[in-house]
Amino acid sequence: MRWLRFSLPGEDSLRYGRIDDDDRITEILGAPWDSHQVTAQRYALSAVKVEVPLIPRTFYAAGLNYVKHIQEYAAQTGKAINVPAHADIGYRAVNALIADGEDVIIPPGATQVEYEGELVVVIGKRVRHVAKEDAMQCVFGYTVGNDVSERAWQASDRTFWRCKNSDTFKPMGPCIDTAFDASRAETRVSVNDQVTTRFATGDMLFDIPTFISRMSQNLTLYPGDVIWMGTDGHSPLLKAGDRVQVEITGLGVLRNRFVHA
Amino acid sequence: MRWLRFSLPGEDSLRYGRIDDDDRITEILGAPWDSHQVTAQRYALSAVKVEVPLIPRTFYAAGLNYVKHIQEYAAQTGKAINVPAHADIGYRAVNALIADGEDVIIPPGATQVEYEGELVVVIGKRVRHVAKEDAMQCVFGYTVGNDVSERAWQASDRTFWRCKNSDTFKPMGPCIDTAFDASRAETRVSVNDQVTTRFATGDMLFDIPTFISRMSQNLTLYPGDVIWMGTDGHSPLLKAGDRVQVEITGLGVLRNRFVHA
Repeated sequence: MRWLRFSLPGEDSLRYGRIDDDDRITEILGAPWDSHQVTAQRYALSAVKVEVPLIPRTFYAAGLNYVKHIQEYAAQTGKAINVPAHADIGYRAVNALIADGEDVIIPPGATQVEYEGELVVVIGKRVRHVAKEDAMQCVFGYTVGNDVSERAWQASDRTFWRCKNSDTFKPMGPCIDTAFDASRAETRVSVNDQVTTRFATGDMLFDIPTFISRMSQNLTLYPGDVIWMGTDGHSPLLKAGDRVQVEITGLGVLRNRFVHA
Repeated sequence: MRWLRFSLPGEDSLRYGRIDDDDRITEILGAPWDSHQVTAQRYALSAVKVEVPLIPRTFYAAGLNYVKHIQEYAAQTGKAINVPAHADIGYRAVNALIADGEDVIIPPGATQVEYEGELVVVIGKRVRHVAKEDAMQCVFGYTVGNDVSERAWQASDRTFWRCKNSDTFKPMGPCIDTAFDASRAETRVSVNDQVTTRFATGDMLFDIPTFISRMSQNLTLYPGDVIWMGTDGHSPLLKAGDRVQVEITGLGVLRNRFVHA
């Protein structure tokens, strides 16, 4: 089942809906992962504005979690190849989220902007101390993310505040799919309709149950948390006017244009 | 004016209130920094449970922001003294928040647990691209935080997920004061009623307007965001049974007991 957050033209209020037959939305009251009420209200998908599927309570990110990406980053920066020994989760910030179809704004001074196409896990149940074999029970569904990064700031700054969390640097969406299987998917990123990166989505250093189980030993995961699972390969430098598309096969396509401020 | 979030005995619902005459609460509908309605409902402060004053939308933390603390941390870890060159903001996570009076749970395997008494800034207005001289206009008020840290995990892990964000590691409260002046305050931390750290709260490497102005060049600050301003000095190692009190003079006292899981 696929779920969407949307607004109607000229309205500020955000609504949740179920996508039926690929082109129609049935509105619900409440979040899809909570108890909710299905209404009789229907909309054509083409008539609504797609919004960020949720504002996460906590915005987790695996960071380095595919070996090729770690090697590429090491080669690019001249640093040693540093494959993480454990599934240590990191963080991103909600100010940076934008929806499918919205523009990524390249901030003044940014010189090395790149994409990172990522699988996003949406948590649907509260868990603590969950074993790896039970960890998937708390997963509600999946969506697509683009962990836009400015590599010069990533190298120079003490934290990720600018390089990862500048406003508009976190496209996420378009919808949440509850039936997706990462093990058979491919992530394909294209710039201006040319595929520039492709990798097996499931080829992670630490898989989803490993992250969830380890995280849950020290922290509580809540409904509405998200975990971005990291990326593989290497992005070309992006410039204003570029159209970037992150597709995860069987899950969805996230499209955003890059523009100057 | 001082504001509090609270619950009533036997009830789950969270309420906001204004503190009158130090011992009475007048309930309001809505958050103090938003448009809200003052009700006729009154409670004795002693009759309610004090809750975390807010769950931040984004939980910012300055990290290293007092010179003595940076020197102490360098001495402790044998690393070089690394005074930040810029006000690069970091992040903490909301799962870890607990209220005044609640227990910090020392997780299994934790061997080097320390306190960090911190001033917390609560944002009340949305801002972007704000100049340093106008930055304080977005500040709604202040509260007290304890940035509990496990130093062995801080040294070993790739991220701060366990060392800073284990459940219960972020006591915050008890209330939000809108009239506090950091420049005249002292932060005093005590363990079992013995003062173990004291420093001038305002003696920051980068002050509040500097952080807010710099952050706002690349990101939007929203009502309900918080910024923890860092700590000075050095904590003894804490053990189960210790009672830790963080006082910021003129602002408030945050009390939490440390216990085993």
